[in-house]
Amino acid sequence: MILAAVDAGGTRTRASIVQDTLECRGIGLAGRGNPISGGGPEAAFGEVASAIGRAAADAGVALAEIEAVTLASAGGTAFEAGFLTDAFAAVGIRAPFSKRGDLAALFCSGTHETDGYSLVAGTGATAVRMVDSAEAQTIDGLGWLLGDTGSGFWIGHRVARAVAAALDGRISTSMVEPALEVMGIAPDLALRTGRPIANHELVRVVYTQSPFALAALAPVAFLDDGDPVSAAIVDEAARGLAQAVIDVHADDVTGPLVVGGGVMAGQRRLLEGIVAVLRSSGLDLPVIRATDGLVGASVLALRGAGVTVDAEAFETVRATTATQLARQTGL
Amino acid sequence: MILAAVDAGGTRTRASIVQDTLECRGIGLAGRGNPISGGGPEAAFGEVASAIGRAAADAGVALAEIEAVTLASAGGTAFEAGFLTDAFAAVGIRAPFSKRGDLAALFCSGTHETDGYSLVAGTGATAVRMVDSAEAQTIDGLGWLLGDTGSGFWIGHRVARAVAAALDGRISTSMVEPALEVMGIAPDLALRTGRPIANHELVRVVYTQSPFALAALAPVAFLDDGDPVSAAIVDEAARGLAQAVIDVHADDVTGPLVVGGGVMAGQRRLLEGIVAVLRSSGLDLPVIRATDGLVGASVLALRGAGVTVDAEAFETVRATTATQLARQTGL
Repeated sequence: MILAAVDAGGTRTRASIVQDTLECRGIGLAGRGNPISGGGPEAAFGEVASAIGRAAADAGVALAEIEAVTLASAGGTAFEAGFLTDAFAAVGIRAPFSKRGDLAALFCSGTHETDGYSLVAGTGATAVRMVDSAEAQTIDGLGWLLGDTGSGFWIGHRVARAVAAALDGRISTSMVEPALEVMGIAPDLALRTGRPIANHELVRVVYTQSPFALAALAPVAFLDDGDPVSAAIVDEAARGLAQAVIDVHADDVTGPLVVGGGVMAGQRRLLEGIVAVLRSSGLDLPVIRATDGLVGASVLALRGAGVTVDAEAFETVRATTATQLARQTGL
Repeated sequence: MILAAVDAGGTRTRASIVQDTLECRGIGLAGRGNPISGGGPEAAFGEVASAIGRAAADAGVALAEIEAVTLASAGGTAFEAGFLTDAFAAVGIRAPFSKRGDLAALFCSGTHETDGYSLVAGTGATAVRMVDSAEAQTIDGLGWLLGDTGSGFWIGHRVARAVAAALDGRISTSMVEPALEVMGIAPDLALRTGRPIANHELVRVVYTQSPFALAALAPVAFLDDGDPVSAAIVDEAARGLAQAVIDVHADDVTGPLVVGGGVMAGQRRLLEGIVAVLRSSGLDLPVIRATDGLVGASVLALRGAGVTVDAEAFETVRATTATQLARQTGL
């Protein structure tokens, strides 16, 4: 049985052709496959179709041979089912498809377990409790205005506010210079109407661009362990992310915690902070990092086709996917 | 000598014709006179010109008789000088004009003193130190993304986040029902994808409208003194606003603190909280509330014309302005 599994994300889309023998036979890479982050469903689906097409070509199978498609995307609700039926048919894929959430795929990328938790901190922040390979409860993921505590936007926004306050002499932080560099602003501290020119420029740049662009400042919070202002931002982000896990936790679900997302990937201190808060709240979950949801989408595709994915099977899917991915990307 | 004084704000513009005898002779009311809050300089200046025209008609003086114009607006930088020269000439006002800041005007609406502090909490939040009737230093006023801590947006944003968390069962607060009512959302707690329908609706409404619309939720934070979640928001707003005063304070400037702005106007608890924080920091400033900057713009106009405005003169300006305003508005 030939299955297509897709992890459609806000910056990139990856597809895998996986067989019920548990072997990943081919990989296809494409761009932004999330219609919510801009561009609309047609453009996003175009990337999904490209990724599947490239994976099929890589595996040496025709699109008509694909017997089921599993499409993991943000919240699992990124595309409407009616739209997908037509869109898949239009590109020659008539197999049944199932929509899954990105956090379910992330969870299944990290473990063969079917119960547990996943936590993502990327541009947004969301925690889910997984039961039987599906989301039993979702916490946060409410976007930049209503939630996403501890996300890249949330951290970058606090960096920007701290830098603006520091430029006005209200606080002191080592983040000023690196933040201005990220924003492309000269560190000109000469005063104009009682405020450094660099702060006038910061105001101009921040209100000219999209609020989301503040996420680019998130890495600045992790540059200097000895800066109390940035340490407080990282601590509060860790507490917020840990609280999402605490709030989604149920005593009867003991499985592992799979973590992922762009912010989590690069920043050791954030994950250490989260684990410390969880332990102090009595939650001592095994923590697994996952890069993305591609292996998980394949695992979900296999389980959807009736294949049992135990620890050994999981390792086969993971290893063959990693091999194909390494061959494709040269990494 | 006949002077025109204008308080051009983000929601309304008020003009006064004041004589060097200290008497307010007429008042003119118009709409949004701040080009920053939308509509551009031409539309905003149209409101300024309307307010002056109505004030002159009310006072029975011709525009050509006006010998100087004092225009107070956000930051004092709302209009460019070159634009104003042409725009005033185009409506028949050829008198010299001076641009002043809204916080300077607010300060001079509350006191005859020339040194002290003013603090505004409206849609934005700013504190200034006043020396010789001019802003010696400005703190915050950096807008909704970079600052404005304790402003209407800042408070409303926190109300929205708390309500979203409460709808997901993460916290408990009495703000849920009134906030949903303000947003026009039915309190439907039935679950869809593990989240109450009211929360899905909140997400939809918040991300459809302008972020500024969240300021409409600010009053919800003040409804229930016994709700710890809203009390924490009000406390943090009060601490943030007090900190702006602390940061702008200089030991050699002992004058009063004049407070104003829409959030400050309606909410006794906020000002009490600010005063408590200031006292605990050793700042025991006399606090004066001011409704807007109209009296202060007149005081600045008079001082600009070389008139000394002492306590007695201030009271004459204040009382005659109040009388004319009451006659105009029926209040």
